[in-house]
Amino acid sequence: MIHPIPPGTRDVLPDEMRELRQLTETLRARFEGAGYGEISTPTMEYEDVLRRGDERAAGAGYRLFDEHGQVLVLRPDMTIPIARVVATRYQDEEPPFRLCYFGNAFREVDRRSGQAHEFLQTGIELIGMPEPQGDAEVVALAIEALSDAGLTRHRLGLGDGSLYRTLLAELEVPEEERMPLLEALSRRDLVDVAIGVDRLGLASSASDLLTRLPTLRGGPEVLELGKDEPVAPAVENLRACYELLAERGVADRVIFDLGLVRELGYYTGAVFEVYDPAVGFALGGGGRYDDLVGRFGRELPACGLALDVQRVHVALTAEEREA
Amino acid sequence: MIHPIPPGTRDVLPDEMRELRQLTETLRARFEGAGYGEISTPTMEYEDVLRRGDERAAGAGYRLFDEHGQVLVLRPDMTIPIARVVATRYQDEEPPFRLCYFGNAFREVDRRSGQAHEFLQTGIELIGMPEPQGDAEVVALAIEALSDAGLTRHRLGLGDGSLYRTLLAELEVPEEERMPLLEALSRRDLVDVAIGVDRLGLASSASDLLTRLPTLRGGPEVLELGKDEPVAPAVENLRACYELLAERGVADRVIFDLGLVRELGYYTGAVFEVYDPAVGFALGGGGRYDDLVGRFGRELPACGLALDVQRVHVALTAEEREA
Repeated sequence: MIHPIPPGTRDVLPDEMRELRQLTETLRARFEGAGYGEISTPTMEYEDVLRRGDERAAGAGYRLFDEHGQVLVLRPDMTIPIARVVATRYQDEEPPFRLCYFGNAFREVDRRSGQAHEFLQTGIELIGMPEPQGDAEVVALAIEALSDAGLTRHRLGLGDGSLYRTLLAELEVPEEERMPLLEALSRRDLVDVAIGVDRLGLASSASDLLTRLPTLRGGPEVLELGKDEPVAPAVENLRACYELLAERGVADRVIFDLGLVRELGYYTGAVFEVYDPAVGFALGGGGRYDDLVGRFGRELPACGLALDVQRVHVALTAEEREA
Repeated sequence: MIHPIPPGTRDVLPDEMRELRQLTETLRARFEGAGYGEISTPTMEYEDVLRRGDERAAGAGYRLFDEHGQVLVLRPDMTIPIARVVATRYQDEEPPFRLCYFGNAFREVDRRSGQAHEFLQTGIELIGMPEPQGDAEVVALAIEALSDAGLTRHRLGLGDGSLYRTLLAELEVPEEERMPLLEALSRRDLVDVAIGVDRLGLASSASDLLTRLPTLRGGPEVLELGKDEPVAPAVENLRACYELLAERGVADRVIFDLGLVRELGYYTGAVFEVYDPAVGFALGGGGRYDDLVGRFGRELPACGLALDVQRVHVALTAEEREA
């Protein structure tokens, strides 16, 4: 007799569960120690509420109906619900707000290979603190928490989600041409980016910049190359962020990646992606979303980072096996 | 601006979340100390799989569709999924299996007043151990775990889910008359029970037994009254269970309740309900389900108990306030 479970979901038996609990307890201890209070929100949100945060986020999730026929969505991430909570429940309190969470998120549309349909996420949100301080605090805390958990070789890719968009606007690339390029970039398809840029028929210096920028990846020397471009403010923030991370002793974990844009959702500034050489996929990511909380009624700059707990566990196991 | 969340769901902010975490960590420590390994299953199950466990359970949940149009249900409880896991993943291992869980369950149809639509459940399942030992172990562990958590006045109602059904069968009450009576009983509507019994036109001794039994509630003296009835085997199990609980020093927490039937699902023997005088609702419940695991392919007697974590927290807060 076979009793299937939905694709992209898992049964976790006690031996693995014990390790996952140990991992989440370690991460929580670090987050709470840094003043990040745990929060929990409903598994289901009204589609209209999610759409207010991000038109695309609502589309990716499992949809169902409540008893009045309204559309509910299984939350595709925790950031939009937390933005909703902060704007509505912390209306009169003094920012910044430091929050963390541990909960399942759901994606029906599997855009990234190997992505589970249900996955345990943990993350931190720092709401009410602008760049570069906010970015640096979130990045440093994520790096430190993963070190606590036992990872020794993890790295954090640091880019800027607005960089390429700003550049396309500055170069007066027509609106309708921008989205396909940004989508190719978010897929990390640099061939498609090059073909797309070529089609724009720009001056060779502009064309060169648009194809070169996404390939810039490495230490702080990468930032030199973006210095005199129209993207100088974003690059300047990354540099300031780097200095703060150096003060906190975690700068050696950071790889600048000017082609990193993450998903084309609500990110307005710095974007992050977490890697470990033991595994071939990102352990998590995040970024700055200065417009999101305001969409729910209170204007606050914000920044956050989420980790896929299962993937962090896979990386830990792989590192231990190699050691 | 108002951004609603679905009815019967909640945002939990850090102050409350910290207390909930402390509560769940205390319960988990007791469960794991007693050899109950934590397990996690998907939030969604195929409706066909849930139906195999209990026709009614599948109907109570939120339904959605996967990409192939198959019906998924947000799990209404954790017992059926765990029965599925044990029958399929522990096919060749030696019972008993001791498992615990912490996870959200969902009920769209709100049959009990004040029941949330999404609620954090914790529970234990003891699979492969028959009555009365299995019943006593589960009951004692639940009582002890709640004492660890800080409750001082909690009680556990102990009945037998098959008692009334057996009695109706022995008295040759027609099948179609039984269900309305059992439903009235599960609602604790003793007036409706009395009216229904009256309509059956039985001999006065039988009629008397059917109306009297659901009112029997109290210490072990209650069991004397059921001694010579057709329900003697069930009563004998309750007595044996009581003796085991007395040995373990928790018998004073137990109230016999011969009218307790819980929901009309998969329970085949002892049933439990957990109370605290500080609050007006059950904190949880459970019972023996000797047929359930077999429906998934491995015949094993089993018994379990679930607690609504939020309700336990409310009871704790109320007790502390009164103290």
